[in-house]
Amino acid sequence: MAPTLPLALLLALLAPGLGVAVPGCDYPAHLWCSSWEIAVACQAESHCVNLSRPAAAPVELSLFYESLCPACRWFLVQQLFTAWLLLPSEALTITLVPYGNAEERNVSGKWQFQCQHGPEECLGNMIETCLMHEAKNFSTYFPVIFCLESGSSVTKNLEACLQVYAPQLDGGRIAACVQGDTGAELMHRNAQLTQALDPPHQYVPWILINGGEKPEACGGSRVPKAPKAPAGCRR
Amino acid sequence: MAPTLPLALLLALLAPGLGVAVPGCDYPAHLWCSSWEIAVACQAESHCVNLSRPAAAPVELSLFYESLCPACRWFLVQQLFTAWLLLPSEALTITLVPYGNAEERNVSGKWQFQCQHGPEECLGNMIETCLMHEAKNFSTYFPVIFCLESGSSVTKNLEACLQVYAPQLDGGRIAACVQGDTGAELMHRNAQLTQALDPPHQYVPWILINGGEKPEACGGSRVPKAPKAPAGCRR
Repeated sequence: MAPTLPLALLLALLAPGLGVAVPGCDYPAHLWCSSWEIAVACQAESHCVNLSRPAAAPVELSLFYESLCPACRWFLVQQLFTAWLLLPSEALTITLVPYGNAEERNVSGKWQFQCQHGPEECLGNMIETCLMHEAKNFSTYFPVIFCLESGSSVTKNLEACLQVYAPQLDGGRIAACVQGDTGAELMHRNAQLTQALDPPHQYVPWILINGGEKPEACGGSRVPKAPKAPAGCRR
Repeated sequence: MAPTLPLALLLALLAPGLGVAVPGCDYPAHLWCSSWEIAVACQAESHCVNLSRPAAAPVELSLFYESLCPACRWFLVQQLFTAWLLLPSEALTITLVPYGNAEERNVSGKWQFQCQHGPEECLGNMIETCLMHEAKNFSTYFPVIFCLESGSSVTKNLEACLQVYAPQLDGGRIAACVQGDTGAELMHRNAQLTQALDPPHQYVPWILINGGEKPEACGGSRVPKAPKAPAGCRR
């Protein structure tokens, strides 16, 4: 891109007759119903009224995935994020575990990882794991992960995605986590969670609903059986 | 954010044992079915097979909106983008006209604009209009507009959103359009399209399906009547 000045500044400075910014709804869309004050600022009250009382206990969905596995990206971007965006936030509790078919070994007390889609996938898994650790709040980090997984690169857009969806987060802390012992420990925990699956996963994306198989209403069965594999990433 | 090195570079350089990036699916999600080569690179062929032949003529949807109108952002982010992402790309043809309840006047041969939510909304309308003009292809610019409308600021994230969803576009050309005569001419065209609505719009978001009212199957009527206003931005 050509300009030496940051583009936003350039646009703000140069646009004739467009003047300066006025305060308004400076919150990402997923926060518009997060508090009454923000709903008022974003004039979203009428949308949020219906969303304030969940009808039933939330569905718990756990996704075991790999950052570069195409079928995982497809599910996360096209199905899970869109469902989450359309549903009341209280309807769905989502746990993301990026590890999948990776392998780990302990070398002199430090965990090292090998990933199905190579070192870049390990980096993507680590960035998303450290992002979740730093952000803590699901509705803060999920749009950032959507941004990473839906964009031109899973590993090169963290700074841009933070600016758009979570400008309050410190990218430097996430980078420190990725390169340090914290990231390795968190990834080892992902490995443990994945290895603890019973029955074990056969491919990714591997999805649990309320900690187990699909409920009967969704075509599942209480009798464990080998699920039919979609076009996922097999071991 | 703390690091002086770009974060992506820092992460790539410092992550121990994570190595260098390998070539793979370096395309945003909305392009995974755009060509056979990309579908293969992103291992999305099995998803795309079903999408290659639309069952019927596409639905044409026109959205007349304002960049900062909360009800417009809600519709665009939560409903239109998610529907577009989930549907085959051939099913829906979308036209975006950012102008809404703005007003224009011609001062010494140049068009000047006043927007319902102030000068920042005029800037947002202009950025999105110039982005569409430069990108031309809907599936190139719609994710960028989603990124702007769903993020922390509609007017300050163009550079970040281009990096994530359309790195091939030149932000400098968009900035030049925004500040120059081209942007004003394009916005005047948006004004003309909005003023030509028959019946006229009563609020935004104002949505046309196949150039007119909702089809009967969607609860519409062929007899023109005043639609019931949702919590939109009235004139």
